[in-house]
Amino acid sequence: MPVITLTTDFGMKDGFVGTMKGVILGICPKVQIVDISHDIASQNVKEGAITLWRAYSFFSAGTIHVAVVDPGVGTKRRAIACMIDGHYFIGPDNGIFTPIIRETSKRNGKMVFVELTNSKYFLINPTNTFHGRDIFSPVSAHLAKGARFADLGPTISDPMMLPWTGPEKVKNGWLAHISYIDKFGNCTTDFPALEISKSRQVVIHVNGKEIRGLSISYGHQKPGELIALIDSEGYLELAVVNGNAAKYIRAHVDDSVEIEQK
Amino acid sequence: MPVITLTTDFGMKDGFVGTMKGVILGICPKVQIVDISHDIASQNVKEGAITLWRAYSFFSAGTIHVAVVDPGVGTKRRAIACMIDGHYFIGPDNGIFTPIIRETSKRNGKMVFVELTNSKYFLINPTNTFHGRDIFSPVSAHLAKGARFADLGPTISDPMMLPWTGPEKVKNGWLAHISYIDKFGNCTTDFPALEISKSRQVVIHVNGKEIRGLSISYGHQKPGELIALIDSEGYLELAVVNGNAAKYIRAHVDDSVEIEQK
Amino acid sequence: MPVITLTTDFGMKDGFVGTMKGVILGICPKVQIVDISHDIASQNVKEGAITLWRAYSFFSAGTIHVAVVDPGVGTKRRAIACMIDGHYFIGPDNGIFTPIIRETSKRNGKMVFVELTNSKYFLINPTNTFHGRDIFSPVSAHLAKGARFADLGPTISDPMMLPWTGPEKVKNGWLAHISYIDKFGNCTTDFPALEISKSRQVVIHVNGKEIRGLSISYGHQKPGELIALIDSEGYLELAVVNGNAAKYIRAHVDDSVEIEQK
Repeated sequence: MPVITLTTDFGMKDGFVGTMKGVILGICPKVQIVDISHDIASQNVKEGAITLWRAYSFFSAGTIHVAVVDPGVGTKRRAIACMIDGHYFIGPDNGIFTPIIRETSKRNGKMVFVELTNSKYFLINPTNTFHGRDIFSPVSAHLAKGARFADLGPTISDPMMLPWTGPEKVKNGWLAHISYIDKFGNCTTDFPALEISKSRQVVIHVNGKEIRGLSISYGHQKPGELIALIDSEGYLELAVVNGNAAKYIRAHVDDSVEIEQK
Repeated sequence: MPVITLTTDFGMKDGFVGTMKGVILGICPKVQIVDISHDIASQNVKEGAITLWRAYSFFSAGTIHVAVVDPGVGTKRRAIACMIDGHYFIGPDNGIFTPIIRETSKRNGKMVFVELTNSKYFLINPTNTFHGRDIFSPVSAHLAKGARFADLGPTISDPMMLPWTGPEKVKNGWLAHISYIDKFGNCTTDFPALEISKSRQVVIHVNGKEIRGLSISYGHQKPGELIALIDSEGYLELAVVNGNAAKYIRAHVDDSVEIEQK
Repeated sequence: MPVITLTTDFGMKDGFVGTMKGVILGICPKVQIVDISHDIASQNVKEGAITLWRAYSFFSAGTIHVAVVDPGVGTKRRAIACMIDGHYFIGPDNGIFTPIIRETSKRNGKMVFVELTNSKYFLINPTNTFHGRDIFSPVSAHLAKGARFADLGPTISDPMMLPWTGPEKVKNGWLAHISYIDKFGNCTTDFPALEISKSRQVVIHVNGKEIRGLSISYGHQKPGELIALIDSEGYLELAVVNGNAAKYIRAHVDDSVEIEQK
């Protein structure tokens, strides 16, 4: 069965997500629909981009990922579909696929982009306020049912990209940033932990706190202790054992994290 | 595969919804179960009614919609099933299907109602506190599996209806109401936007604020601006560009909205 | 289709649950995945244990239940699978299956436990921070796809058990405890309501309030009244008609509830 994932800022209270699923199942009844997140902060395209990026590669090739964080719905912003190393992505052309495109570019992966213009794959008379229901869901369902990717619309080569900062090499180490704070208060950074030399001591500075060395996992120090470790995607992460690091260090996304090697 | 939707005030924390799904899948393993909402305000039958009404028509005919906002569970309130223009609805007889029945009546759609009395479609020994699990889920699953609608119980003709107000024609326009506030703070009204004459100026008054004209979508004015537009179901809606209209105008459900045409 | 249920403290915002589903569907595409709860309080193993226990028996035998409330991930705590009266359970060996094992023991049910050591059923190179994705999800999917339970790892006989208190017989009745507070503020206790003699008056004392007699369901007294009734699992429960008992009596899990019979 084909798989369609959904990532939105719609929340689960209002029935918008259920409505999208009704549209999808009406077109392609045999499909597995998976919610990645519907609790992206309203209109926060970057947060949606990071969440989808962290999750998508754990799905099989052929999966269709629909992402709708879409403050520009009904304006002239384009609607797009991307084929990226065998995964499909459908959503507004507002940068929501930026980290996936960046990463795929770096490893010279295969990418094709089309603008969604073929209205035979839309609901009839799409509204200006709910393209998640009227355009992105039906397009994803038609693709799951066998529509050809090239038939969705003309090829484009300039998908919109969000500005994207990364860690910076500085004297004795790097200047990195908190990129995501999860439900446990764990603070992931944009720093690939592989860069840290194991033969030299590492000291991490964040919001006036200092952490010496990396821990193996959350349970390897005393409860309440602020630790650094490698997260499940290979990035440097800050956590408090049995606690909430974000509260403890008053962290916000984009806060600086200094990684010093001695 | 048959589709069963669920709309409840159970929340997702306590496992009640998962339990309902366990019952359904035990009876009818090949079914698509779709959550419409489980975050209806506790015991708010009207909110559940509006949420289901806005979503159901985007599902295919044949879909079975289970709605459980049920403060009267275990009392003498009846349990019912409705067949409405090919859709099935199952839940307590407390008015939760009111707007669907009203709308179907207006267009002379076909409706049949039965009281759920055939206990062979219930779990054995239903409790007095969880008919969502013990009655509504198993009935929906048996229906999905092929049970005959008429076999669920005797036909009735008097489903309970909630009182339901609509917009009122007044001098120079209408007096409408906010009917629903969504996660973004967008305030939908009970006013069908088609009624607004395009050849005359429209001015909307709500909670001391004034809006002139309709916008095409959320992104067509400056960020922070209060706008009016046509929502995705065709009703007049109030929004703030990239913001939260409900907070901005301190809106509550049932607040008055005056639509003036000059 | 096989059924896999998920019970975690991951929340739905961060995409962790969607990622687990991606892994499961990649291994076993034809499976029904059901969320029991992802809103278990962070690292609260006991709350996860109670939630899964209340739900699991409404699923068919053969269902695979994955539970991940796992503060010890990446430490020496074992990963286990249990076969309990035909249901399968997969998760950390930290006591999360305690009430299910206790109850099954009491009725001399059949139980087999294995330690998850066969890494051919894991993702390659499991991380130390996300066994839900790297170990428990793939193991559940392989089991759903037909892997033999005995092939998951060696049999063990000493799964970790949480300390678990129950009601105590006292003069003129019992001393019980609030075991769970649900979304409605209903307070379930650890007291099996069948123990209450119907031929004698019952008076319940909790946090300075007194309740006389049992009500049939939530709607059988006046709105606002504090009542006692039998919950949908057969335990004594405290509720406020159309209200929130937990707020009304300022209840917390483990608060004492005295049941007096006269």
